Amino acid sequence: MGAQPQAVERRLHRLQQVMEQAQVDLLVIGPSADFQYLTGHMPILSERLTALVVPRQGRATVVVPRLEAPLLADLADRYNMAIWDETERPAARVAAIGREIGARTVAVNDQLWSVFLLQLEELLASAAFQSAAGVLSRLRATKEADEVALLREAARRTDAAWEEFCATSRLTGQTELQVEARLRELMAKHGITDEVFCIVASGPNSASPHHHNTDRVIQPGDPVVIDFGGRYQGYFSDITRTPVAGEPHPDLVKIYEIVKAAQQAAFEAIRPGVACQDVDRAARRVITEAGYGEYFIHRVGHGLGLTVHEEPYLVEGNAQPLQPGMVVSDEPGVYIAGQWGVRIEDAVVVTEDGAERLNQVSRELIALP
Amino acid sequence: MGAQPQAVERRLHRLQQVMEQAQVDLLVIGPSADFQYLTGHMPILSERLTALVVPRQGRATVVVPRLEAPLLADLADRYNMAIWDETERPAARVAAIGREIGARTVAVNDQLWSVFLLQLEELLASAAFQSAAGVLSRLRATKEADEVALLREAARRTDAAWEEFCATSRLTGQTELQVEARLRELMAKHGITDEVFCIVASGPNSASPHHHNTDRVIQPGDPVVIDFGGRYQGYFSDITRTPVAGEPHPDLVKIYEIVKAAQQAAFEAIRPGVACQDVDRAARRVITEAGYGEYFIHRVGHGLGLTVHEEPYLVEGNAQPLQPGMVVSDEPGVYIAGQWGVRIEDAVVVTEDGAERLNQVSRELIALP
Repeated sequence: MGAQPQAVERRLHRLQQVMEQAQVDLLVIGPSADFQYLTGHMPILSERLTALVVPRQGRATVVVPRLEAPLLADLADRYNMAIWDETERPAARVAAIGREIGARTVAVNDQLWSVFLLQLEELLASAAFQSAAGVLSRLRATKEADEVALLREAARRTDAAWEEFCATSRLTGQTELQVEARLRELMAKHGITDEVFCIVASGPNSASPHHHNTDRVIQPGDPVVIDFGGRYQGYFSDITRTPVAGEPHPDLVKIYEIVKAAQQAAFEAIRPGVACQDVDRAARRVITEAGYGEYFIHRVGHGLGLTVHEEPYLVEGNAQPLQPGMVVSDEPGVYIAGQWGVRIEDAVVVTEDGAERLNQVSRELIALP
Repeated sequence: MGAQPQAVERRLHRLQQVMEQAQVDLLVIGPSADFQYLTGHMPILSERLTALVVPRQGRATVVVPRLEAPLLADLADRYNMAIWDETERPAARVAAIGREIGARTVAVNDQLWSVFLLQLEELLASAAFQSAAGVLSRLRATKEADEVALLREAARRTDAAWEEFCATSRLTGQTELQVEARLRELMAKHGITDEVFCIVASGPNSASPHHHNTDRVIQPGDPVVIDFGGRYQGYFSDITRTPVAGEPHPDLVKIYEIVKAAQQAAFEAIRPGVACQDVDRAARRVITEAGYGEYFIHRVGHGLGLTVHEEPYLVEGNAQPLQPGMVVSDEPGVYIAGQWGVRIEDAVVVTEDGAERLNQVSRELIALP
């Protein structure tokens, strides 16, 4: 989970350079992947404020409640520690730093709880507040070599779990929750136990992209959208396959082939310099031309790293160019309410001259017993 | 997990009454226990905004991304549904409602991500934003009879897991992580599998109140702070016991008895009309008079319900009076860095004329093999 101290040092240095360019005076980062990226620690997220407070120049400060200070004790080498007591208002510690440096522009991480932002806005009434996403994604969206290696390994282990699932498991007669339990067992067997997620959406439920699994019994002919992944040494895998229970209906085969072609088209669009929205367009064109455009109701992909969804988002309206080292999902889908849905997803890393899939398992329509 | 439709209806009605009293025009509630309390649903928390938007008068609106709309489809009976597409900015949907009713005061739930609050502040620039905690805790802090029944059942099952643990488990020679695994197994056996948490802090680690479990092997004489719980039908249990591995050191016995007396003093202070801070003071007085005041580094307790930590907080500075139906933790502790710590915690419900512990298992110092 923890980044190496040298990596953390380098990232913090780079962060302050980006803050300089973006004219951000102070960054306030609560418990989140951003905090983890910059410290190697994931602090407890609660009503007690923990935050990394980074000025544009000079030493950063970790604000932490006294009862959780032992968990971050090793950060004292590199950061000022502002340990607050239960009867204090911790936002005042952050505001004091802001006042000391005369901060006019303060950026906060997107996931910081509003209760803290409201307190900071009150205490630093003359400062302008903004999202820190622009600054932080300048660092996090482009993965370092060590990060790509972990994402690759997470994908490899997830692929192994999937191959074992296909070789050993039934769909027909199983409930969605049973299929989920089986996949979680296999993920654990292949070394992924942290923050495992697993959508198993069968039959008509497969038309709900983020379905909550139920005890519905899978019927012959059902497509089953299985979207799963988890964290390996801090970095996520995220893959989707849509096998069918027994013999597929010809209409399902037709839709499956359209989605597969769209997924391939998006993959082929991914290379340095291409705008994120052009990857979405590449997949959408295939599906729209086949007559199913209205059923592809989500963006084609998202960044993948310390979180499952992060920048860059492959969505219409995002003209940001892809860069080597970015890792994104490629996951078009078609969802016909009341009937069925199909999604196919791989993680993809942008290389110097193109792209490489991190997931290697077959994308063909698989019939399972 | 889901509240009954009638309960939801009644809560929403009461909420609008409280908004009237508090002069709040619009409430914006992202995915959180607050959302769950008011709808019976826990939506997905992500970069895609889902929110319940409640005007002071009239029908509330659920803002939800199209790909997750199927999950909340049954809310369409009671709420307006604002289903947004991937290329839209969902905060604009919320702002449109605010403009329509001329909202001047907008309250947001404490856990709403800052990225959304910043967008709302920009779009509703003339409105004043505030925390919704005051309004929401007027409802949630005092539990309904059904809620108390579920909290009681969660505590009963957790007690059963603890009794079985004590009857069947060793500490000496086990790692903290092994003890955690054993307790999780027993929680599952007694029907609690959702959001189980389990701190196992042994020997010197017991001085870190929110310790992260390690593979440290428990030694003879170690106190082991075990703080655990989980969700039963949506409602949390939360209990701490500090058994010792083998024979306790006389100094540990002495500290244990002080903490036990403090926990009893706090319990005896809990009754309707007593200020929250007076419960903290009752425990703190016992520990301070025994000479350990500086080692009791956290508040004595917190509310318990759909979340593990919620209002009311039993902390110095909170003069709010306790009311029948409030459920709080009573958990003083003494933590001596580098040496050891002790914490004893029960969930307690405020009754019409006093208080009742929801956890019934022994609070005596237990020696386990």
